[in-house]
Amino acid sequence: MHVTLVHVWVLHEHVPDFLEATRLNHEASIQEAGNRRFDILQDAQVPDKFILYEAYDSPESAAAHKLTPHYLAWRERVAPMMARPREGQPCLGLYPAG
Amino acid sequence: MHVTLVHVWVLHEHVPDFLEATRLNHEASIQEAGNRRFDILQDAQVPDKFILYEAYDSPESAAAHKLTPHYLAWRERVAPMMARPREGQPCLGLYPAG
Repeated sequence: MHVTLVHVWVLHEHVPDFLEATRLNHEASIQEAGNRRFDILQDAQVPDKFILYEAYDSPESAAAHKLTPHYLAWRERVAPMMARPREGQPCLGLYPAG
Repeated sequence: MHVTLVHVWVLHEHVPDFLEATRLNHEASIQEAGNRRFDILQDAQVPDKFILYEAYDSPESAAAHKLTPHYLAWRERVAPMMARPREGQPCLGLYPAG
């Protein structure tokens, strides 16, 4: 799996809107060809910090996500909600294999 | 989902052994009642750094993992392979819901 952990810091007052926008992105993203996971995590100790756990079966599928209407809509909607720039952490998903 | 991201730094010379031990732990853990994910990630930019993405449907299922023979065997086997203490990052898995 080709994995990106996207670290997101949200301005506190925008957390409810961020969650609504991100739920929509989740629901559409898990329908994409090649998507394996699109899990939305909230840091238990830093509740305005979120992690998007995005796993695809190939680099091409992962790249295609960034061209989807739902990703582009999410990106635009959440832009004013960010407390600082998002950070993407690329990982190789070893297991499950394939 | 009740999620823990376990951050693991492995001594370089032990990486192959660590991967074998961790594969066995993965294979047994995904059979546990209540397990939702037990993904093994390698940091693409720091190849001796790994993340175990462990998701369970309840705190009880997550706690039960730490009593399993495969977890206890893994913990003992990898102890001498650690470059520094592991760090567990607790998260709330918001989506997928439930």
